[in-house]
Amino acid sequence: MRIKRLTQSLEAMGLDAYVVTREPNVFYYTGSISGGNLIVSPKTNPLLLTSRLNLACALDQAKECEIKPYAKEELVDKIVEKLDEFKPKKIGFDDLPLKLYRELEERLGGLELKIEVDAVRNMRMVKDADEIELMRRAGALADVGMEAVKNCIKDGIRENEVAAEASYAMMKEGADALAFPFIVVSGPRSAYPHGGVTDKKIRGGEFVTIDMGASFKEYKTDMTRTFLVGSPSEKQRRIYETVLEANLVAHDKIRDGISGTEAHLTAMEVIEKGGYGEYFIHGLGHGVGLEVHEGPSIGRKSNDILRAGNVVTNEPGIYIHGFGGVRIEDTVLVTRSSPERLTKTPKELDAMIV
Amino acid sequence: MRIKRLTQSLEAMGLDAYVVTREPNVFYYTGSISGGNLIVSPKTNPLLLTSRLNLACALDQAKECEIKPYAKEELVDKIVEKLDEFKPKKIGFDDLPLKLYRELEERLGGLELKIEVDAVRNMRMVKDADEIELMRRAGALADVGMEAVKNCIKDGIRENEVAAEASYAMMKEGADALAFPFIVVSGPRSAYPHGGVTDKKIRGGEFVTIDMGASFKEYKTDMTRTFLVGSPSEKQRRIYETVLEANLVAHDKIRDGISGTEAHLTAMEVIEKGGYGEYFIHGLGHGVGLEVHEGPSIGRKSNDILRAGNVVTNEPGIYIHGFGGVRIEDTVLVTRSSPERLTKTPKELDAMIV
Repeated sequence: MRIKRLTQSLEAMGLDAYVVTREPNVFYYTGSISGGNLIVSPKTNPLLLTSRLNLACALDQAKECEIKPYAKEELVDKIVEKLDEFKPKKIGFDDLPLKLYRELEERLGGLELKIEVDAVRNMRMVKDADEIELMRRAGALADVGMEAVKNCIKDGIRENEVAAEASYAMMKEGADALAFPFIVVSGPRSAYPHGGVTDKKIRGGEFVTIDMGASFKEYKTDMTRTFLVGSPSEKQRRIYETVLEANLVAHDKIRDGISGTEAHLTAMEVIEKGGYGEYFIHGLGHGVGLEVHEGPSIGRKSNDILRAGNVVTNEPGIYIHGFGGVRIEDTVLVTRSSPERLTKTPKELDAMIV
Repeated sequence: MRIKRLTQSLEAMGLDAYVVTREPNVFYYTGSISGGNLIVSPKTNPLLLTSRLNLACALDQAKECEIKPYAKEELVDKIVEKLDEFKPKKIGFDDLPLKLYRELEERLGGLELKIEVDAVRNMRMVKDADEIELMRRAGALADVGMEAVKNCIKDGIRENEVAAEASYAMMKEGADALAFPFIVVSGPRSAYPHGGVTDKKIRGGEFVTIDMGASFKEYKTDMTRTFLVGSPSEKQRRIYETVLEANLVAHDKIRDGISGTEAHLTAMEVIEKGGYGEYFIHGLGHGVGLEVHEGPSIGRKSNDILRAGNVVTNEPGIYIHGFGGVRIEDTVLVTRSSPERLTKTPKELDAMIV
C-alpha cells in the first residue's frame, strides 16, 4: 500500500520514477531491514535491488515488490538495466551520493536526476495507528530506562555506569536496541548538547543530563532529563525552572496547525524572558519515528506545519560554557488538542534532585 | 601533528586545500567529538567551522586549529569566506553531498571540487601506538561482552535478552558505548548476516550468531561468534568446522604485505573445498578503528595491501537461506608476522556448545 501511494504521488512531483535508497525508507516501504534500492514507477512493477549479503533477509521480509540481488560492483548496471526497461525521463532519489550521480548521469545521459525528499518525508511524518502503537511501546521503554537512571545516579558513579544501567533496563524490558548512543554529560560537560559518555565521575552539585531513547521494532523514542546531585544552587534552580517552563508552555501549543517556527518561538520567548535567550542554541524539536531525526522540524527556520499524527520532540535547553546546562525533552504525539506524551517520566525540579 | 601531515600530503594529490567533513575524521584530526568542517591548506591556518550547538565542545576539545561557529544556514557562506581568503584552485573533500557540491560550485565557479578519500583513509588505516592501546582495551571489552553471552544463552531466552546482558557487561566494565547495534540472529535468522535483534526465543538445536563490539574512547572492535544450543547435527558440525578452518587459515596469512584479495581468497579456498563456496557471500574483512567499517578492505575486489599497524576483521561465514548460518570473526592487529588478536574469546566448536 505504501509503495502504491508513493507511486501515485510521483506525477504531482513531475517525476516518472523514484529510487528509494536509504535503509529506513526501504523498511518503511517494504517492511525489510535488508536495505537496498527500491525502484518504483507507474510504468513498471516495483523492484528491490538488494545486496547478495542481505538477499535472504529481503526474500523473507520484503513485501509488494520483486527482489533481485546484486554484487557490489554491479549496482549501477542493475539500476540502469531496470530503468532501460521503461525509460523514465525524470527520476527522483531520497539520497544520491555524488559518485552515483555522476555514474548514472554518464550512463543515462539526457535524463533528469534529482534528490527529492518531500514525498517520502511527508508520508513518514504522519504515523498510522500501528506505528503510533509501536511508538507508545518505545516511549514506555524509554521511561523504564530513565527510571533506572534515577535509581543509580549518585555522587561518585561514572557517566558510563549510568548508561550501562539504563540501557540494560530498557533492553531487558524488550527494547531491541538503543535508539541512539547514550548522552550522559555531567558538570561542565552538561553544556555540551551532544557530549557522548565518558568515564568521568559524577559529583555532588552537578547537573547531569541524560539524553536517550529506545528502539522497538525499528521505531524510536527520544527523551532527555537533567538531574541535580544534591540541592540546587540559586542559579541552577533558575535555569532549570526556565527550561521547564519553556517545555510546558510549548507543550500546550504543540498541536495540529501550528507552524514549527511558532512552536519554537513560544519556547524561546520563555527562555528570553528568563534572561537566557542566547544560551538556547538549537531548535525546539524534530520528528521521530523510524529515525531519531526526521520530519517535521521545529525551529527558527522550519518550513513545516505540525499535523495530527506527527510525532515530535519538545526539547528546550540552556547551555552555559564552563558552567553546565539543562535540557528537558519529551517525545509527543501531535493531535488536534494537547499532544499525547509518549515519554512520561516526571520532570518537575523536585523529582530531579537525587 | 595529524593536521600537519594531511596538509603536507595535499600537494601529492594535486590539491591546494582540503575540507574534512565526516565526524570520525574531524575527531581524528582535532580530537574533538564536535564534528564540523575542518579546512586545511598549506596556504592558510587550519580552521574548524563548528555548529553553534557544538561550539563549547569544540572549544574545549579541538587542538591545533582555529574554531568558528556557524548557524545552520550560514555554513556555505562561512566555507566560501574562508576559501576566498587564500583562493585555492583544487579542493578535496572526504565527503561532498550533491546539494553542497552544487551550492559551492555555483558560489566558487571555476574551482575544481572533488571527493578524495585516500589521504585520510590511508592515514587512519595505520594505527599509532596510542590508538593500538585503546583498541586492545576495546577488544578486551568485547571479550567481556561475549563471555556474558555465553553465560546467558540457553533454550528459551530471547534474542534481545542476550543483547541486554552482553551490552550491560561491556558498558559496566568501561565501554563508552556499543560499537554498533547488536546482531543476535538465531535459527533460520542466522542466515541473515545483518539481521538485527528481535524478541524471538532461542531454541535447542539452533545456531545463534552474535555480532557485537565495544567502543572505548571512540575506538571500536568487532567480533562474531556462533553458538550452538545443544549438540550440533552432522551438517551443523561440518559447516562450523569449515568456517573455523577458514578463519584459522586466513589468520595465519594476514600480515604485512599480503593483498586484501589474497587474504580473502585464502579463506574462500577453504570454504569452497568444504563445498560451501556459494554460501560465503561477503568479503573476509574490513578495517576497524574510529569506525567499525574503514580501510583497508579484505575481499575479492580489494585494492589494498595490508600493512603493519592496520587493524582488520577476519570474518568468514556460511549462510544457507532457510537453514541458518555461521560466522566467526575476530579483530586483529596486522604485524610483520602473525597478527595479534584483539578479541580473544575461544572459538573452537566445543567452546560454542551451550
